[in-house]
Parts: sequence; structure tokens; C-alpha cells
Amino acid sequence: MSFELHERLAADTFLVTDLTLCRVLLMNDRRFPWLILVPRRPGLRDFDDVAGTEKADFHAEIDLASAVLREAAGAEKMNVAALGNMVPQLHVHVIARFAGDAAWPSPVWGVGEAEPYGADEARSLIERLATAFRG
Amino acid sequence: MSFELHERLAADTFLVTDLTLCRVLLMNDRRFPWLILVPRRPGLRDFDDVAGTEKADFHAEIDLASAVLREAAGAEKMNVAALGNMVPQLHVHVIARFAGDAAWPSPVWGVGEAEPYGADEARSLIERLATAFRG
Repeated sequence: MSFELHERLAADTFLVTDLTLCRVLLMNDRRFPWLILVPRRPGLRDFDDVAGTEKADFHAEIDLASAVLREAAGAEKMNVAALGNMVPQLHVHVIARFAGDAAWPSPVWGVGEAEPYGADEARSLIERLATAFRG
Repeated sequence: MSFELHERLAADTFLVTDLTLCRVLLMNDRRFPWLILVPRRPGLRDFDDVAGTEKADFHAEIDLASAVLREAAGAEKMNVAALGNMVPQLHVHVIARFAGDAAWPSPVWGVGEAEPYGADEARSLIERLATAFRG
């Protein structure tokens, strides 16, 4: 069994980069700077399903994504969450939050409708993020 | 500066146990089996704020809480999240979810009103969980 990105995640996001363990995706919703990390291993569902030997990479990549997005977005607060009630493939949301954003202070899920990025806006943000991940 | 549990967390939960790093709390809402982990260090806000030397404990304790609660509740899915938009003290939600629970498949936050446990029910659940954490 090999890794394949869930079709719902593929449809809702842009590819930013691949880290050692995780694929990094940008959610196509310009209301919230929002990354999604997906460990590129088949059959994972819950946060604690990552193999013992890969947990250090997993957690380091969540922290890296938090740092990269906080800096890129100038965020006041980061939200980190693995829910997966609708999309069963393990994925971790890393979301930059601001007092006064479209959902504040509630969580972002299920609030209003996503506002897709313009093509140039997406391309430029993805390039900035990918550069920051390369360090 | 010493650790002090945020008053909102203290008001909404019962103490289950203290692990090496985190205080483990049970959310007083019988609709969802729901633990909250709070690293007993002052001044932490975001998931990546935990000190490098304590990250391994932090992540191991999240995984332990997931395993304990999954087993105790017979859960189908675990939700793990560090949000903190309202309570700034770093705390990690570990929630057992079931198809058909009061919020499914949405996240649990902000859904309806909490249903407090009865005193005996809370005592017995806390004792079961504390025993499981002691392993």
C-alpha cells in the first residue's frame, strides 16, 4: 500500500512542499493563513498513529510549520489540530489566527464559505512559504 | 513565575492526574469523553512553545492520553487540538468521538451546552482514567 493524498485534501489545497515525513499543503481559503500537514504514509488516521521512529520528525515538522506560518502571516495565535472526522486520512491543521478574523475567537472549521485565493496571490504565497520551509 | 492553572480551565474540569510534564483534566461535559492536557510550566501559549528538552514528554503524554481515553471510551476517532483563542494558557484537547455524538462530524467546540457529570459518575470515571494513566 502506498501513500496517496485524499481527494478532498487534494481538491481544497495547493502543494507547498514535501518535508521528510509530511506533505505540506496550503488551504485555498484566503480568510485564514492555513497549512495542512499530511504524513506521507498509508493507513494513518489518528494523531498517535505515526510510527514511533517517525514521531520526532512528525512533531518537529508541526513546530516548523507553526514557526514558518506565524512569521509569514504575522500571526497573533496559532491553532494546531488533528480532527479528521470527515477526511479519515491523518492530517494536521496549522492555522494562523488574528483577533477579528472571520471566525475569531471560534475555531475556523465550518465557519462561512472558503474564499479562494487569486492565482497570482496563491503563487506568490506558496513561493514565500516554500522558501521559508527550505530555511 | 510559577505554574498556575487558568481559572477557566479549573472551573470547567476535574483533575485526573499529573504526568511528568502535563496536568491531565477531565472536561465536565458528559456528552464527550474529553481530556485536557496542560503543561505545568508558566507562560506557554502555542503548541510549539514547549521547551526543546520537554517536547518528547509533551508528545508522549498526548499519545498516552489518546490511548487511555480511546480505550476507556471505546472511541471510533480521536480529536487532538491546541486552540487557545479564548484561554491563552497552552492546553491540548484530546477528545473521543463517535459517529452520532452531539457534534458529529463537526468539532465539539461551541456546540450546544455542556452537560455536567453526576457526582458519582464523575468520581468513577476519574478513578478509571487515573488508574489507566498509572498503567
